[in-house]
Amino acid sequence: MPAEQTNSLANIFHPASIAVVGASSSASETGWVRRLRDFGYQGKIYPINPKTKEIQGLKAYPAIRDVPAPVAYAILNIPAAQAPQAIRDCAAKGIKFVHCYAAGFSENGTEEGKQLQAAISRIARESGIRLLGPNCMGIYCPASGMTFGEDFPKETGRIAFISQSGAEASRLVFLCRDVNLHFSKVVNYGNATDLDESDFLEYLTHDKETDIIGLYIEGIKNGLRFMSAVKQCMKTKPVIILKAGLTESGAGAAAFHTDSKTGSQAVWQAFFKQTGAIPAQTMDEVADILQGLTRIRKPAGRRVAVIGRGGGIGVVATDICERAGLKVPPFSHETQSRLLQIKPDAGASLRNPVEPKLGMEGAADFYLKGLSIVDEDTETDVILIQMAVDIYGGHTADLLQNVSEAAYALCAAADSIKKPIIAALFAGGRIDTVQAVTAARDILSKSGIPVYSGVESAARALSKISNYYQFLDSVK
Amino acid sequence: MPAEQTNSLANIFHPASIAVVGASSSASETGWVRRLRDFGYQGKIYPINPKTKEIQGLKAYPAIRDVPAPVAYAILNIPAAQAPQAIRDCAAKGIKFVHCYAAGFSENGTEEGKQLQAAISRIARESGIRLLGPNCMGIYCPASGMTFGEDFPKETGRIAFISQSGAEASRLVFLCRDVNLHFSKVVNYGNATDLDESDFLEYLTHDKETDIIGLYIEGIKNGLRFMSAVKQCMKTKPVIILKAGLTESGAGAAAFHTDSKTGSQAVWQAFFKQTGAIPAQTMDEVADILQGLTRIRKPAGRRVAVIGRGGGIGVVATDICERAGLKVPPFSHETQSRLLQIKPDAGASLRNPVEPKLGMEGAADFYLKGLSIVDEDTETDVILIQMAVDIYGGHTADLLQNVSEAAYALCAAADSIKKPIIAALFAGGRIDTVQAVTAARDILSKSGIPVYSGVESAARALSKISNYYQFLDSVK
Repeated sequence: MPAEQTNSLANIFHPASIAVVGASSSASETGWVRRLRDFGYQGKIYPINPKTKEIQGLKAYPAIRDVPAPVAYAILNIPAAQAPQAIRDCAAKGIKFVHCYAAGFSENGTEEGKQLQAAISRIARESGIRLLGPNCMGIYCPASGMTFGEDFPKETGRIAFISQSGAEASRLVFLCRDVNLHFSKVVNYGNATDLDESDFLEYLTHDKETDIIGLYIEGIKNGLRFMSAVKQCMKTKPVIILKAGLTESGAGAAAFHTDSKTGSQAVWQAFFKQTGAIPAQTMDEVADILQGLTRIRKPAGRRVAVIGRGGGIGVVATDICERAGLKVPPFSHETQSRLLQIKPDAGASLRNPVEPKLGMEGAADFYLKGLSIVDEDTETDVILIQMAVDIYGGHTADLLQNVSEAAYALCAAADSIKKPIIAALFAGGRIDTVQAVTAARDILSKSGIPVYSGVESAARALSKISNYYQFLDSVK
Repeated sequence: MPAEQTNSLANIFHPASIAVVGASSSASETGWVRRLRDFGYQGKIYPINPKTKEIQGLKAYPAIRDVPAPVAYAILNIPAAQAPQAIRDCAAKGIKFVHCYAAGFSENGTEEGKQLQAAISRIARESGIRLLGPNCMGIYCPASGMTFGEDFPKETGRIAFISQSGAEASRLVFLCRDVNLHFSKVVNYGNATDLDESDFLEYLTHDKETDIIGLYIEGIKNGLRFMSAVKQCMKTKPVIILKAGLTESGAGAAAFHTDSKTGSQAVWQAFFKQTGAIPAQTMDEVADILQGLTRIRKPAGRRVAVIGRGGGIGVVATDICERAGLKVPPFSHETQSRLLQIKPDAGASLRNPVEPKLGMEGAADFYLKGLSIVDEDTETDVILIQMAVDIYGGHTADLLQNVSEAAYALCAAADSIKKPIIAALFAGGRIDTVQAVTAARDILSKSGIPVYSGVESAARALSKISNYYQFLDSVK
């Protein structure tokens, strides 16, 4: 990859100054100017609007050419039909990066839309402008203060996300925030008439602020280039891909969303097999996998120790794990004997799954005394903690405290455990169980334990993470 | 099925009087006596405890034989080793139904446990007692005031659930309560040394208080009898079965839970194919299917109209539906033209999926004006409403009100819609989005619209319900 290009894309995430063309003059509306300023963007912001003199306390200019200083980046907040002229104006001003926020191009299926897209594409190419979009939300980069969501977290993380969908990218930011997981950079690039998934993936492969890269993709412009970019990235960073539009109906929907040719299932199956990229089917699953990759070390294998409410809940958890491609084998005899010493009353529940005690009270005690024994078990590789908080709602007066204490005990015990630990918390729908689970989720995730909404999502993520490490081993 | 047996099992759900053998004398503990009394059981309760004179304001008796009136039903709240003698005492007293709550029988894998179970089984058989358990929670029947969960709803419904797991049965009761769905009868029968799944299924097939029957099963005592009971029931009532322990690891776990032989996957696949019973893999899925069966009429086919946040969220929803065995085809040209008349600004989003408008504000308006158009579309059979509330958290001041209004509008519109309507609400993890979704869930479910936590669960339930109706058509 040419170093020049790497350098240049850095300016999209960290531009020194931004012109907002078509800046909203409404005081009540949260437009781009206010959003950037409120989020903490530190560079210069130049509102462009011929109808007003001031926007959000900043001097507004009638046209781009009137800005009295160089501009690094422009956001076009104007109707599609005005975009070609605006890009010419940006070129005349010497702007190198333009984000075309507007929709109404080739994705709407009209001849006019297609021609408009062809026009902006040609103008950008001829004038050396790199174009982001059209039909997209652009950049979220907490380190530089750029955002397209006014309530996105200001915390920085080490995950980058490249998305053809703005709404799905927003969902991911929120899903991750709920488990205290944050981003280095998110880009929503829409119709990708110029800058596309491969440009961003190649750039982020070498980005020092990024350890893991996820993508939401409907269509690929250049399959060979993308495959090569993914293979290259996988050498140092895991790549997770939600390939949308893989079904017949989904392909039709994608065509009308971003005018994408989605490709066949067979082609994509081969792609995932060859590259080892981690496939995800929903954004919730992307978030689940990101959590696991960020927070657990490589599991030695696929054998899971299940600890938590046992009985039928344990049996169902075991089935779920095995259907997801994991195993829940009995502990070694030695482990079972040692567990029996700390829990002589437990009887049948020490085989795996383990049931520390009915109710949450016994859980904390078991984490502190029993986890180190399970850690040394030779028959299991990963520890899955189940907290079926949903069945204690209503009749447990101090549920929030019990569950929080259990979560703190798990964090304390986890420090000295070598096996990866993941947790599944069942929230239910009662206010008391939801609050208890929210508190526990916060405690555990801040302490670096991945937290899932159930065994299904936990097992699915764990299995895909295991596949990833298996792939890495296979290509060593 | 012998009428006598039907009559007799009615006494298990509606006993005229209950003796609690080993009633807890602790004032703080919620024992069986207090639970029954607080829940509203109207019959006589006789606490049996030789160490005290009074329990929860009721006269306590030293032994069963001391009760001065006939007793219809006994709950044995005593250690396993004392169970054989207690059952002899019950027989001497003329009690016909005994619920052995205690664990510590064959499920614990010891010779002693097996012998104890054989003993109580033999004693019950010889003395004409029908035995429930051991190792089980027994009966929940809101109409008679019997319960094993102190905060189970007192509302009655038309669903019966037969469960080998008490914890999973409890989870189901709570999962259903969250969507205002209630039960006629729930039974947790544990090791099934006498009364088993077939006994209860045969009884409930003819129960006038029950329309739908679900089962959580680890092992079956008599496969042919059970298959015949399911076939018989399916003629008038749908049967949903969570067969646990179907995987290798799961079978091991089940053996140690209820000492069940779980059977092979191949056998169970054939079973589901032949009987048409609806298979579920988790209790959440059981609740999802129960909701759909209770609340929507038979769909004309598997083609889904998806209405809600579009873009990438619509594409992913479409993929999820198709992977679940549904279709999301484009609307007819006529439908698209008619929708364009009420939403001339929408452009590309009227094809299916439909995006009424960004934000929740446009949703209510679309439900009132657009649903009747979608109802007449010839290319779709079912309407799936997506509310991606999770992406509006934080920056939407009146989110609770917006979402509630949208829910009310949907209820109002739904009244005149012929196609089945289901809703998927994305709650996210923020307190404002969770509250908005909780409110909408309550509004919609009280109005009879099935509510799911996401498109995945909605599509999965809808597909299985479609399978069920297809089976019914095939055996007509």
